[in-house]
Amino acid sequence: MLTLYYAPSTCALASHIALEQVGADYDVARVDFSRHEQRSPDYLRVNPKGRVPALVTSRGILTETPAILLFICQSFSSAGLAPLDDPFAFAQMNAFNSYLCATVHVAHAHRMRGHRWADDAAAIAAMQKKVPQSVGECFDLIEREFFQGPWVMGERYTVSDIYLFTLAQWLEADGVDPERFPKVADHRRRMSRDPVVSKIVALERASA
Amino acid sequence: MLTLYYAPSTCALASHIALEQVGADYDVARVDFSRHEQRSPDYLRVNPKGRVPALVTSRGILTETPAILLFICQSFSSAGLAPLDDPFAFAQMNAFNSYLCATVHVAHAHRMRGHRWADDAAAIAAMQKKVPQSVGECFDLIEREFFQGPWVMGERYTVSDIYLFTLAQWLEADGVDPERFPKVADHRRRMSRDPVVSKIVALERASA
Repeated sequence: MLTLYYAPSTCALASHIALEQVGADYDVARVDFSRHEQRSPDYLRVNPKGRVPALVTSRGILTETPAILLFICQSFSSAGLAPLDDPFAFAQMNAFNSYLCATVHVAHAHRMRGHRWADDAAAIAAMQKKVPQSVGECFDLIEREFFQGPWVMGERYTVSDIYLFTLAQWLEADGVDPERFPKVADHRRRMSRDPVVSKIVALERASA
Repeated sequence: MLTLYYAPSTCALASHIALEQVGADYDVARVDFSRHEQRSPDYLRVNPKGRVPALVTSRGILTETPAILLFICQSFSSAGLAPLDDPFAFAQMNAFNSYLCATVHVAHAHRMRGHRWADDAAAIAAMQKKVPQSVGECFDLIEREFFQGPWVMGERYTVSDIYLFTLAQWLEADGVDPERFPKVADHRRRMSRDPVVSKIVALERASA
């Protein structure tokens, strides 16, 4: 049995969808950000970083979306969510996930989490102001250079599709018009219609 | 034949050391940041992100340190730089690498690359001011929670050791005293004495 710690509207959605798609035996534990539970002593024992997602396994606790997604791909290899037998394709998928984690998510985080990188209110406001531009540039690059179609990695559906869908959910709130990126927007619509994806999105929304 | 695009004093050092340690047949191409070559049309054809590292392979070009390190581990599996046959240990290693990439490197980047996240000079200065604190907190967490010893992942030397060593090189310039973190500081000294590591560090320094 696996337990996923998540909060609605966070990148934990990617791990949540992936667990459901592979048919894992798992449950979820919601971390209430409105009550700052992610900084509580109990949660810091689960994840000392004070963030979600965290995946409790029989061997220990995993954090970081790209790593949790890899773990799900490898532990449920018959689900075929990654090209496990092709080191180049596997690395390419991980490069995409790493870009989402370290550049796209980080650009987005400057809207709500500017306090991580500056203390004064004017600087935090200046960061927020640039988010539409910086997030928009990331998605421009994805649209133009990285999205192979029909799925992120081409013909094969992978966890990169789940992860891209998760971060694309934030575009409107980040002040970016999703329709600027026709391929990504179409991908998001197709993903939204997937029964598993729509089920998990609805579940998380109901728990918010 | 592989070609690694790198610049001295960047995270590309990790891929450079890993390629040498596995005995890969590779050459290197230096990207001159002082002449902004990373934004030149020629280099943007290699890596549209305008960053290093980029690894040219016979199948295509890979970017993102965590992905390049995975590719090296899997392509040169006999070198044993990752627990490839253990999905949990492999994910744990990747979680560490993802933390270095998306949190530690990002905290550091606010010293020199604040323009990515804000336009005004005062905000960029405010970001620079917080770097010693934010980078210091990352290394506190590594020292206290993640570093298993004697190597990052415990008894086994992995690419996480190379990656941690690479980012620890920046501590002084980030205004953080490395001796605050005894385990990380000792690790860095041991890594520095490795013949391959010291050779690549010297090579990059000579090319700067």
